[in-house]
Amino acid sequence: MRTIEWDHDRDCVVMVDQTKLPAEYTTYHAETIPELIESIELLRVRGAPALGAAGAYGVALAARRNEADDFGAYAEAVAADAEAVASARPTAVNLSREVETVTTELRQCTSIPEARERTLAAAEEIADTDVERNKQIGDHGADLLADGQTVMTHCNAGALATVDWGTALGVVYSAHEQDKDVDVIANETRPLNQGSRITTVELQEHGVETTLIPDNASGLCMQEGRVDAVVLGADRVVLDGGERFGDQGVVFNKIGTYKHAVLADRHDVPFVVPAPHSTIDTERSADEVEIERRDPQELREIYGTQNAPEDVDVYNPAFDPTPMELVDYLVTETGVYEPPLDRATFEEVDDRVTVE
Amino acid sequence: MRTIEWDHDRDCVVMVDQTKLPAEYTTYHAETIPELIESIELLRVRGAPALGAAGAYGVALAARRNEADDFGAYAEAVAADAEAVASARPTAVNLSREVETVTTELRQCTSIPEARERTLAAAEEIADTDVERNKQIGDHGADLLADGQTVMTHCNAGALATVDWGTALGVVYSAHEQDKDVDVIANETRPLNQGSRITTVELQEHGVETTLIPDNASGLCMQEGRVDAVVLGADRVVLDGGERFGDQGVVFNKIGTYKHAVLADRHDVPFVVPAPHSTIDTERSADEVEIERRDPQELREIYGTQNAPEDVDVYNPAFDPTPMELVDYLVTETGVYEPPLDRATFEEVDDRVTVE
Repeated sequence: MRTIEWDHDRDCVVMVDQTKLPAEYTTYHAETIPELIESIELLRVRGAPALGAAGAYGVALAARRNEADDFGAYAEAVAADAEAVASARPTAVNLSREVETVTTELRQCTSIPEARERTLAAAEEIADTDVERNKQIGDHGADLLADGQTVMTHCNAGALATVDWGTALGVVYSAHEQDKDVDVIANETRPLNQGSRITTVELQEHGVETTLIPDNASGLCMQEGRVDAVVLGADRVVLDGGERFGDQGVVFNKIGTYKHAVLADRHDVPFVVPAPHSTIDTERSADEVEIERRDPQELREIYGTQNAPEDVDVYNPAFDPTPMELVDYLVTETGVYEPPLDRATFEEVDDRVTVE
Repeated sequence: MRTIEWDHDRDCVVMVDQTKLPAEYTTYHAETIPELIESIELLRVRGAPALGAAGAYGVALAARRNEADDFGAYAEAVAADAEAVASARPTAVNLSREVETVTTELRQCTSIPEARERTLAAAEEIADTDVERNKQIGDHGADLLADGQTVMTHCNAGALATVDWGTALGVVYSAHEQDKDVDVIANETRPLNQGSRITTVELQEHGVETTLIPDNASGLCMQEGRVDAVVLGADRVVLDGGERFGDQGVVFNKIGTYKHAVLADRHDVPFVVPAPHSTIDTERSADEVEIERRDPQELREIYGTQNAPEDVDVYNPAFDPTPMELVDYLVTETGVYEPPLDRATFEEVDDRVTVE
């Protein structure tokens, strides 16, 4: 199955429950909006593109579950649910954007049955488009890799971060399709261990040779010449760096990304960011992007065991900004771009899903 | 109590069992050489200076427990035990060095009772000297800090890494003695979490304001201007960088140290390495220092819970080398040194403990 999809039998959202990996590969059915929001908050579903689909399916779920009789009241209630889904996590642009795409569809409807049908069709279109675009990203990115190379990746920008195929790991899968035997060094990615729990499982399933390292070992790996490219995802790319980064763009991605960019720069290792255009925010500046701070308990406990004093202060930001001067290649479904980026190129791309 | 000391009632080594932190602050008695070696291997006792004391006490333990009647056979057996203790972990020079100091003492003895007494006296002298030197290091290092500053530290180069007071954290304690209110950002320090389990506990006990972060957040902390100095320990400092680093010295320390040095360099944050002269290896080059690779299970499981596929390949080096070009200050018991280091300065220091 895909990472997230519509269960037509139960008429609800179904997803791979990523909080259960690597011990169990199980699914979770979100039958209600609170269950879907909880799934986003708990990271049962995570990764910017998958969150986009979660948002889209969320509007469909709201539209199909709401029991109001009057269309006006119905539309208002569904829009409120949609708004709640969009706010479940703040950083990835995809979530709120795809909620908006489907909400726009809703607004064009004139009856409840029409809204129920068209919101689901729009969500399905968004999911299908994600898979198609990821394959395009993978193919473009794989052109940057050679047979026998080793890629370092951080967090999980794989099939499980998208609806399918993945962005960063999609590049690896596409390389394998091009008969290039590319290995992966996967960073553990504390504090939520997406690298050890998710990326390794996914890569093993795809038959990719994988070595897990603690995040602290990535510098040594580069120093020892073990890394031919760093390839990782993006939660949001902005073209305006704001006060801190000036007129260069900025990649917001999993905490630790910035460190790897600095190290890759020092060791002349290409730093590659595959990301769909839907991740590229041409409107906001870096100053306007909120960096989510997550629960201190993620550090104070690991898997339910005490890892630090119960009352210790914790700073636990989920993302960090990497200025474009440290990025060698931005890879989208339309091609490979070398910073500095030309704003017009990205503003011209119409990456909205058109529902037919 | 000290981190490691001699229990005169039970005539054996007693140590704070650091594998039980932060949940329990308990002690472990090593009554035999296998128990002491196991304690070193399991990291019940860890940190280069504490390992030096463990090695020294280990020779005393061997000398006091061996039951041979003939002095020749006795001395040979004790020396063999000493050798086994020295090999329990490969990277920190202190362990083998202090084993050697006490073994040299043993060789000067002519009877078993004399050997039993003199080896223990030598070990006690080494432990006392460690504490005294740490206070000197702390005082020198504290001169580099100002009131209100925030120090980032990695792993635990604190009282619990030494016999007492600590090196990196000793600098913070000395700063507080100088009425400078210095806070600490403690990196979690995967995969063994010495930062979250040990450093935080120790700092809280000393009344130092402490914030725990995931290792991945250290780059963002520097980018956000939260860090005034990175202060961390050294397991071994060599003056000859060997093939990879040339004629500059190299600091071998906990995996992840190198990344922090690169980041500190980018952000113009002073990178400070407090370490006793006993840590400075004037003989070997960086090429001759073996980097210990630890058990893959340290990544595959955390606190007994599965964290990765059971069969995933793991690269788990315990240390990394940081070239001296990235170090701003090396702080020893004799003062503050700014690289490039003058070899003669360090070769002249007689840091051997003289047993009176």
